[in-house]
Amino acid sequence: MQDVALNVSGLFEHGRAVHPNSRIVHYDDDVVTECTFAEFGDDVVRLANGLRDIGLGEGDVVATLCWNNPAHLAAYLAVPSMGAVLHTLNLRLHPDQLAYIVEHAGDRAIIVDETLIPTLALIIDRLTVEHVIVVGDAELAAPPSIAVHRYADLLAGAATTIDWPVVPENDAAALCYTSGTTGNPKGVAYSHRSIYVHTLQISTGSAFGFSDADRVFPIVPMFHANAWGWPHAAWVAGSDIVLGDRHLGVDHLARVITTLRPTATAAVPTLWTGLDTYARENDVDYSSLRLAVSGGSPLSTALVKRLADHDVTLTQGWGMTETSPLLTFSRPEPDTAPEDRIVKQAMTGHIVPGVSARIVGENGAELPWDGESVGEIQLRGATITGAYVGGDGADAFDEGWLRTGDLGAISPGGWLSIKDRLKDGIKSGGEWISTVELEAALADHPDVAEVAVFGVPDEKWEERPLVCIVVKEGAQIGAADLTEHLRDRVARWWVPERWAFVAEIPKTTVGKLDKRTLRGRYDTDQLDVVTPVR
Amino acid sequence: MQDVALNVSGLFEHGRAVHPNSRIVHYDDDVVTECTFAEFGDDVVRLANGLRDIGLGEGDVVATLCWNNPAHLAAYLAVPSMGAVLHTLNLRLHPDQLAYIVEHAGDRAIIVDETLIPTLALIIDRLTVEHVIVVGDAELAAPPSIAVHRYADLLAGAATTIDWPVVPENDAAALCYTSGTTGNPKGVAYSHRSIYVHTLQISTGSAFGFSDADRVFPIVPMFHANAWGWPHAAWVAGSDIVLGDRHLGVDHLARVITTLRPTATAAVPTLWTGLDTYARENDVDYSSLRLAVSGGSPLSTALVKRLADHDVTLTQGWGMTETSPLLTFSRPEPDTAPEDRIVKQAMTGHIVPGVSARIVGENGAELPWDGESVGEIQLRGATITGAYVGGDGADAFDEGWLRTGDLGAISPGGWLSIKDRLKDGIKSGGEWISTVELEAALADHPDVAEVAVFGVPDEKWEERPLVCIVVKEGAQIGAADLTEHLRDRVARWWVPERWAFVAEIPKTTVGKLDKRTLRGRYDTDQLDVVTPVR
Repeated sequence: MQDVALNVSGLFEHGRAVHPNSRIVHYDDDVVTECTFAEFGDDVVRLANGLRDIGLGEGDVVATLCWNNPAHLAAYLAVPSMGAVLHTLNLRLHPDQLAYIVEHAGDRAIIVDETLIPTLALIIDRLTVEHVIVVGDAELAAPPSIAVHRYADLLAGAATTIDWPVVPENDAAALCYTSGTTGNPKGVAYSHRSIYVHTLQISTGSAFGFSDADRVFPIVPMFHANAWGWPHAAWVAGSDIVLGDRHLGVDHLARVITTLRPTATAAVPTLWTGLDTYARENDVDYSSLRLAVSGGSPLSTALVKRLADHDVTLTQGWGMTETSPLLTFSRPEPDTAPEDRIVKQAMTGHIVPGVSARIVGENGAELPWDGESVGEIQLRGATITGAYVGGDGADAFDEGWLRTGDLGAISPGGWLSIKDRLKDGIKSGGEWISTVELEAALADHPDVAEVAVFGVPDEKWEERPLVCIVVKEGAQIGAADLTEHLRDRVARWWVPERWAFVAEIPKTTVGKLDKRTLRGRYDTDQLDVVTPVR
Repeated sequence: MQDVALNVSGLFEHGRAVHPNSRIVHYDDDVVTECTFAEFGDDVVRLANGLRDIGLGEGDVVATLCWNNPAHLAAYLAVPSMGAVLHTLNLRLHPDQLAYIVEHAGDRAIIVDETLIPTLALIIDRLTVEHVIVVGDAELAAPPSIAVHRYADLLAGAATTIDWPVVPENDAAALCYTSGTTGNPKGVAYSHRSIYVHTLQISTGSAFGFSDADRVFPIVPMFHANAWGWPHAAWVAGSDIVLGDRHLGVDHLARVITTLRPTATAAVPTLWTGLDTYARENDVDYSSLRLAVSGGSPLSTALVKRLADHDVTLTQGWGMTETSPLLTFSRPEPDTAPEDRIVKQAMTGHIVPGVSARIVGENGAELPWDGESVGEIQLRGATITGAYVGGDGADAFDEGWLRTGDLGAISPGGWLSIKDRLKDGIKSGGEWISTVELEAALADHPDVAEVAVFGVPDEKWEERPLVCIVVKEGAQIGAADLTEHLRDRVARWWVPERWAFVAEIPKTTVGKLDKRTLRGRYDTDQLDVVTPVR
């Protein structure tokens, strides 16, 4: 077979040549602009030529501090195609962490949305970058060592033809840093090969099956794990791409879905909850969605059921920054009994092609796929990282497999269930209690708005679960009601004795439950813990 | 990213682990047998262990002389997974050619269906193979140098667990020889990488989008270009796989579709014509087919329209033995006007992800994608061969691109139309006349059963088209009627002056129009050529 590298320029040129009439739609509140892939493809090449004009080229790291918009998408395609490395910066990181990753990755340039200049301004004096490219008209005060350019100027004079370099497929195409809750963020380098293979994997009928009949709306920010790979896949498939910029309020999202009619979207459960609530009080139409994916946090059957009221079949995709990201997808097999469908939809998911998974017990032995045996999920595949940038976090790898730090089980048919983060798992009397399953069972109660469970020391059992609950406005429930609610839903010995009713659950920068903060509050007696009278 | 080879054992293990309940259905006339992927996966491993037991291993070439049946599918998966090389023998080749390719490929073993023993018997004394494995109970008389085994015996004692070798992804996984109409067949070696990438490519929503909701029935024989890649793709997706063995009569095919309800099938136009005709006289139901692909020869709009009468949306896939094979697929974009859909469906197709195409004119310059400029189609990609086995046919390559030997044009949106084989193209007065388009226009006439057009010398224009027509039974039409029929369908100067009404059109071993034989008959005055009175 021909020795042809699997690389991003190949993906880019395919979409540009074969789907010139597909569209990029940019929603910016009251302003919606559109262009064709043909027009946009010219901009991608202009950007690459413009970056070359200011002295950037193969191997240079070009960062983005951007929302989901056309400039960001252009960078997704242009930067790796020219042999440079795209570094998507998580704009929600603490300034210290942001400065750390810019320096750690060796960024030479940053493309920044004008609305994010205040974020960049907090750290710019600490950075050794040479160029900042501002998308928009706002002014940026930068030290004299940094040249400030305007995105529009960079493109204005640039040519729309280019000879892409032949980049070896194992070279880095993009970097993304994990938003680890402990220690410094760790960098993941996606290769051209991994992006190419991941693009095909998630475009198969076993996953999202994107085609030119689709209109793809990735709500998930483009600074998270390649926006789940949707921008690349949609571009290659010729799906229209709807970009919602910084407008993550559910009113905006509901408006985009109702008026711009995407066929596919992906978001965290919090936003799906918001979309459900919003739909019960406003005139919306989500019926264009053939594919509605939740990810980033576990999905409850309650939420799946609530979205079904709006004709949305909510499914779960599981992935990690380290894994390109897609690992599993929870669409039930067609012969699944109707009563089992919702349960499957809320499961972590069915392993997708190209991903190998195993469960490893505490003694290091591989456990069977019996749906019962719980151990650490480990992963192997061409789209899964083998090392962090700079050799950080070497303990995350086990004989070539990535340790996920998740406790889970796999059913005989390759359906995977995450039971817990390894560090969140509760070992009570020698057996695991799953905080994820307890949380899901409690979230199923109609009066529960939010819930987080974590383990606390117990004299008799070593560890027992503590529940933090946010009750819905106006609802009147107590620990006894919820204990009763759990009776038929979890094993008897799982039912917690410790309950804390709180005003809100703290979240990490990526919207996950921040159990570390909760645990700190418990340790410093800031939680009012009650025990129901039996 | 992890250094994980893209190879066939990875595809196999995915289907085995993740889709254990999907089914292999074997139609053998009145006997239909089924098994699950879990059961079949055990057989695949048993076959690999059985082949090892008789001394076969990495790098050895294991041939198959089989119809579409479970043993053939097991060889598809087992042989490459164990690091050996699968060689699918085209059972329709002339015995001399068959013997030639067995020796040329260095086959060490042949797996043969008992029904094909007569074919093998014709050449067995000439072969240097060491093992023949018979699927079934029939006896084979072989020279003493060849050990004869029974497939069932080989599997009977073999283990269902195995450690697959880590095969480098660029190693050969499978061989297929082209059925070239001139000279000896040339061998194409598919690598593990090319099979893996092709499997993902054809499973995307841009192509066939296979999933576990599908039931795939590849009518196309498994000895042709990996059966268009469908067995690998269906296995990975967990689609049920229906195998029709040697039963290629339209009565059998119609019965399989009607009773076993496949969702996807692929066949040559001749069989689609047969399925249409059969459906008009018998009680059939083709409505289970969401995907109906024609390939191997050009598709006419007439045939697309006829199949639409049975609720079948016939589309065209274009591929070659050299290209894994899929290159284009003719599903119209969703915004295609209804009146244009049939025309698009009958086009050669839209270029699929991973395939790069260019058109090269007679002077070697690349021609624009304007839908008008006609030149040789050349191809590049990781699923496209860069050389024939043993360095044969080196003139088929141009600076790393595969020369297809097809004349065609590409529209601005990546829609490709093959106008002719380069050697069949008619240069009349300095301009190309497309025999494919003339044939399609004539096939549109309700009284035409078959048609072939080729160029013959002409004193004035250098070359002019000659039409060979098979008229439908009972129809009464002559050259004047067909000349009239062409008036609004092709350029005036294309209309042929030479017509031959014949009883049948000769076909090659793969069912294509055999224009070489027709041309020979013309050269030796065996065709009765008439010219209509104007």
